[in-house]
Amino acid sequence: MRIVALAGGVGGAKLAHGLAQILAPHELTIIVNTADDFEHLGLHISPDLDTVCYALAGTSSRRTGWGRRDETWNTLKGLQELGGPTWFRLGDRDLATHLERTRRLQLGEPLSQIVREFCQAWGIGHGILPMTDSAVRTIVRTDVGDLDFQAYFVERRCEPQVTGFEFRGAAQASAAPGVIASLERADGVVICPSNPWVSIGPILSIPGIRTTIEAGKAVAISPIIGGEAVRGPAAKMYRELGFRPSALAVAEHYRDVASGFVLDEIDSGLERQIQDLGIRTLVTKTLMRTTAGRRRLARHVLDFLRDMQK
Amino acid sequence: MRIVALAGGVGGAKLAHGLAQILAPHELTIIVNTADDFEHLGLHISPDLDTVCYALAGTSSRRTGWGRRDETWNTLKGLQELGGPTWFRLGDRDLATHLERTRRLQLGEPLSQIVREFCQAWGIGHGILPMTDSAVRTIVRTDVGDLDFQAYFVERRCEPQVTGFEFRGAAQASAAPGVIASLERADGVVICPSNPWVSIGPILSIPGIRTTIEAGKAVAISPIIGGEAVRGPAAKMYRELGFRPSALAVAEHYRDVASGFVLDEIDSGLERQIQDLGIRTLVTKTLMRTTAGRRRLARHVLDFLRDMQK
Repeated sequence: MRIVALAGGVGGAKLAHGLAQILAPHELTIIVNTADDFEHLGLHISPDLDTVCYALAGTSSRRTGWGRRDETWNTLKGLQELGGPTWFRLGDRDLATHLERTRRLQLGEPLSQIVREFCQAWGIGHGILPMTDSAVRTIVRTDVGDLDFQAYFVERRCEPQVTGFEFRGAAQASAAPGVIASLERADGVVICPSNPWVSIGPILSIPGIRTTIEAGKAVAISPIIGGEAVRGPAAKMYRELGFRPSALAVAEHYRDVASGFVLDEIDSGLERQIQDLGIRTLVTKTLMRTTAGRRRLARHVLDFLRDMQK
Repeated sequence: MRIVALAGGVGGAKLAHGLAQILAPHELTIIVNTADDFEHLGLHISPDLDTVCYALAGTSSRRTGWGRRDETWNTLKGLQELGGPTWFRLGDRDLATHLERTRRLQLGEPLSQIVREFCQAWGIGHGILPMTDSAVRTIVRTDVGDLDFQAYFVERRCEPQVTGFEFRGAAQASAAPGVIASLERADGVVICPSNPWVSIGPILSIPGIRTTIEAGKAVAISPIIGGEAVRGPAAKMYRELGFRPSALAVAEHYRDVASGFVLDEIDSGLERQIQDLGIRTLVTKTLMRTTAGRRRLARHVLDFLRDMQK
């Protein structure tokens, strides 16, 4: 069974890791959001790509879900000493990734090739693809003006009120090599429990991606449980944009692309309403607290995909 | 007594540190070579400036003389994992200096201003000035072609045979703010025991510096002891350029600028020949193995300068 997963950062990385524990390398391709990428201290930083790679390499921090295990922070301390910008927390081990990626990008290597070689170096067999090699940047429209995503997300801790999003550059972007081909070959597409607005939204905005996902082949997993996001600003964004945050809102969000939907047991009361949208449902435990939990959810999602196609 | 010291890396930093232990902040200005500066991994690295700053801040590695005390190497390990360039050893704490300097240079701040603010942050009261805010780069002419200084020094471990040097950009460069004024005010100039060819040579090549050093006011300390350099390729360079490396060769090298010369007790047999050049001499222990040793040599050099001017 060939599966393509669409993923953002921490939540997406967890389910992608679960899928990678079950599927062989040739059975799984993970397409990752790069609209959160940004320049910081002259470095090109790809937060979602790194989070997914570190998760699959088994080197991600278990405590935070992002960054690297056994990280040290001496560069950051040095920056603080000098009054440099420390709002984005760069670990010493993590920094190597940004330095080497930036060096190669400046030599003209496409991001997708760099990621492929990093994966080799880190012993990751499964395919991890950036959604695009082009520069696409999420701009968050807010009551205090337009903000670059990381300025909104990290520097201003998601405090400004959101009025909309722009995925700048998306219309002119091309999907990275392998992205469309992997979707064409896919027996199933898994939309990971990442933020629908700013993690999955940008991926689906790249020309060719949404239209290549065949009807009846995609399932989405709700990142909203009991009306709240497991982490991050997804629920806050739904509220500020005039929706009541819930698994139902997410199912409606994805109704044009996902014909199957996975919601948490806590939200089983919403199952009927989601089914009434013409969407098939799976109710299960969706919180992934442990490595086994990631594998368990991945197993249920794959079984659900298989059932859907019977 | 107002003193200006000219310094390169490790040897220069040690004597500068010795001088700083004796002289009040307003009595000492250190002018540092920047012709070894280079771009690496997109970062602007100023090895000599950092070595002098870390020495005066008391945060330099006692083991190596360069880099920072209690350094960790996790970024470098990460780079190695990715097959990135690791020939230049970047420590995690040290990296903060390069990141923040690069960030500020890209905002258009002159290097001299950045160094001044770094010194404030590090609690350094004495003045440390880059020789210039302009880009001056040492090119080492060798039997295998022209090499950037760090490519010669670190990457190729000084192995190519030297045929000459070029301080590219020096003729068009201006001394950094404060450099000429400090020399005009100076009661004495100390040419530290740094490499005469590639550490002190570039400083003296900046228009206005050599000519502002008043006759009779400068002493040089030999970096060659017993025919060998304390560290680095100075002796090898003398040999390859057709000179017998010795304290005498260094005294001849500086005869147009330094009317006083400090040589090691080991080389006392050369004292008469140096005096025959019309140069006043001081014979003393010049190896600086400890902090006290730095202070001791600095004290002797200052006494010698005072005696010279009686």
